[in-house]
Amino acid sequence: MRVRNKPWAIELIPEHPELIVEHGQDLKGKWQTRFARKQPIFIEVGMGKGQFVINMAKKYPDYNFIGIEIQKTVVGIALKNALEFTLPNLQLLYADGADLTDYFDDGEISKVFLNFSDPWPKTRHEKRRLTFKSFLKVYKQILIDNGIIEFKTDNQGLFEYSLVSLNNYGMEFDNVWLDLHKSDENVENVETEYEHRFSVKGQPIYKLKAHFI
Amino acid sequence: MRVRNKPWAIELIPEHPELIVEHGQDLKGKWQTRFARKQPIFIEVGMGKGQFVINMAKKYPDYNFIGIEIQKTVVGIALKNALEFTLPNLQLLYADGADLTDYFDDGEISKVFLNFSDPWPKTRHEKRRLTFKSFLKVYKQILIDNGIIEFKTDNQGLFEYSLVSLNNYGMEFDNVWLDLHKSDENVENVETEYEHRFSVKGQPIYKLKAHFI
Repeated sequence: MRVRNKPWAIELIPEHPELIVEHGQDLKGKWQTRFARKQPIFIEVGMGKGQFVINMAKKYPDYNFIGIEIQKTVVGIALKNALEFTLPNLQLLYADGADLTDYFDDGEISKVFLNFSDPWPKTRHEKRRLTFKSFLKVYKQILIDNGIIEFKTDNQGLFEYSLVSLNNYGMEFDNVWLDLHKSDENVENVETEYEHRFSVKGQPIYKLKAHFI
Repeated sequence: MRVRNKPWAIELIPEHPELIVEHGQDLKGKWQTRFARKQPIFIEVGMGKGQFVINMAKKYPDYNFIGIEIQKTVVGIALKNALEFTLPNLQLLYADGADLTDYFDDGEISKVFLNFSDPWPKTRHEKRRLTFKSFLKVYKQILIDNGIIEFKTDNQGLFEYSLVSLNNYGMEFDNVWLDLHKSDENVENVETEYEHRFSVKGQPIYKLKAHFI
């Protein structure tokens, strides 16, 4: 997601240390202290403006959620959106490009959500795709045993690539949806901003749910 | 594929023992004797009227092909179509419902093609789908080590199911196509009758290439 620089968004961040973490390294292994209750932690890598992770936190109070974003202006916008609610099971993390293993201890996370991440269609950019094997290795490390990845995209090429990449990494597929919004599963689906705009045009949303073994 | 009974098709079969095999059990482990040259054998399970396997045999003379079909009238039609050419690397097999391990020895086959097989959409019919685990076990047994399956379908539900089934069986994916006819790979694609009719309507053709490990 590309957005224009918005000073107000960046300035909002230091005003809300109760909701947004700027130095995640300090919380490695201690994330449960940031929540009202100790319960499984789900993270969204690349939360954008936060619609998905905020609505998940509202819908599933028995899980703790961390929305992660690398673009500072975008994090600020997500923060503004999150401030509209009181969600003791939600935290936001401004991740400034460090490896997720710098922020999370082994097994600290129960599920990783990847939603509409950048497809990086050129072959020479394969290593930047969030389903490239080096990222899978990181997710596996911070996840519990049999930890789950839920991956959604509208990008056909990225989905084809990711099916092969997760399979080749040895992950076990739980379910595949090639047109999520026309399936029964959609009853439970929580949309991202991007997903909503895209799906109303009638184009298919792909989803893969898989776990490490 | 459902077709009306055609007596001429069934009557054609015993007239061409050089091209069509009615008692495949007798050839188990000896299929190379049916071809002009000893070279890797590829089979198509459910060849229908034979367009795919016939065109593959024409296009790839360095491989031997066996088209297999369980419906007798359909086999007869495929036979009529195959008789239009002289293909020393093609054989047809009327498989009357027996297990493929009754026809082929362990490791006798190098690749299995599954094209537009019956989706059997009802959950209670899962065991009949040609990508159900019991079929995968049979393919693995008759295939060489690292033997390949190439699977094409226009059926979204069957493709979703098959991605999960092959993955869960431990197969390694080589490539996934979610719209084969719009991809570069299509240059090499050999169509089935059904595929051609379907794709001209602009609907996506799905393909998975995977191997056993």
